[in-house]
Amino acid sequence: MARERPATPARTAPAEPLSSLDELAAALRCLPGVGPKAAQRMALHLMQHDRDGAKRLALALAQAGDAVRHCERCNTFTEDSVCALCRSTKRDEALLCVVETPADLAMVEHTHAYRGLYFVLMGRLSPLDGIGPREIGLDRLLKRATDGAVREVVLATNFTHEGEATAHYIGEMLRARGLAVSRLARGVPVGGELEYVDSGTLAQALRERRPLS
Amino acid sequence: MARERPATPARTAPAEPLSSLDELAAALRCLPGVGPKAAQRMALHLMQHDRDGAKRLALALAQAGDAVRHCERCNTFTEDSVCALCRSTKRDEALLCVVETPADLAMVEHTHAYRGLYFVLMGRLSPLDGIGPREIGLDRLLKRATDGAVREVVLATNFTHEGEATAHYIGEMLRARGLAVSRLARGVPVGGELEYVDSGTLAQALRERRPLS
Repeated sequence: MARERPATPARTAPAEPLSSLDELAAALRCLPGVGPKAAQRMALHLMQHDRDGAKRLALALAQAGDAVRHCERCNTFTEDSVCALCRSTKRDEALLCVVETPADLAMVEHTHAYRGLYFVLMGRLSPLDGIGPREIGLDRLLKRATDGAVREVVLATNFTHEGEATAHYIGEMLRARGLAVSRLARGVPVGGELEYVDSGTLAQALRERRPLS
Repeated sequence: MARERPATPARTAPAEPLSSLDELAAALRCLPGVGPKAAQRMALHLMQHDRDGAKRLALALAQAGDAVRHCERCNTFTEDSVCALCRSTKRDEALLCVVETPADLAMVEHTHAYRGLYFVLMGRLSPLDGIGPREIGLDRLLKRATDGAVREVVLATNFTHEGEATAHYIGEMLRARGLAVSRLARGVPVGGELEYVDSGTLAQALRERRPLS
């Protein structure tokens, strides 16, 4: 979006009031990262080159809006009251991994290195944006983590300032209830070269160095 | 999109088959410049933060798909058989401006420096992509330009290689029918500083220098 100029003459002063096309461009602005120029380009592209794609997208939007809701146990998106992952009998109920978003959950699943269950915050603590413990459902997480089956909570929030603060807050909250709490390891990425790793990561990898096994 | 990795683990190996959400992400790929990761992010954003926006977008897509068609006279997008601009009695019928896209038409209109009519190619000649004279409706343009009312055709295709080639081709075609043909002036942009103008533009501005009036 950086290349777009702030002024948007083409949309604000259309040659002719094309209501459907203007409304389509305006509606496309609901997509993250789509500015007025990009929205106009998308609308023209769909009408000119991909009307079938537009039809499919309209159906998919309506269908997802009707069907997608939150899992009662882990809070991720699902079309059932409890998601397939929470219903699965093959997962280790003693492990609960806390992630920020369903995309993060998918990334952890993709590693095939985790066999426990999840809790999806659908956000992170961000007091400046008015996002506190209530907004990311920490009361629900607390209830879920203290149901008796969970023995260890793995904090897999992002390693950003807000993600770290969220992990710290949740960690304190759960440790006070006697739960084991762990955090994803920080360090040099697999395949990483020391020359190109930032010094903060390298310092962390030194502090958390492990004995050779 | 340059920052996105080619691999898309999150979408190709979802933790759970979320058909509506996956289908929404797949359908969003019809938008130009939206790759798999961006589509997934958009789908999650809509479900999490903007369900009303998704609803509005679904309606706008369906509405535009039904209503938007091409003007019979100038080929731009319209919801009527002939667009409001072509129907207007205030425009100079002796002038016909040829542009590549409806967005270009809107830009020319926005200048308030042109009072004639338009023909929208909906593309440009691009033989390597299989886009020839027939694909951009040059037979229709020829018919439109030789209807008796048009006296001058202003070629306002882009100053790219393909736009220039398109202007050249149309210019030859129309001049052979005895029509006056002009091209947008090239030169130093308004507000431009010579130090920062590319040498091709400056050379053109020198060759096409005009006597002070």
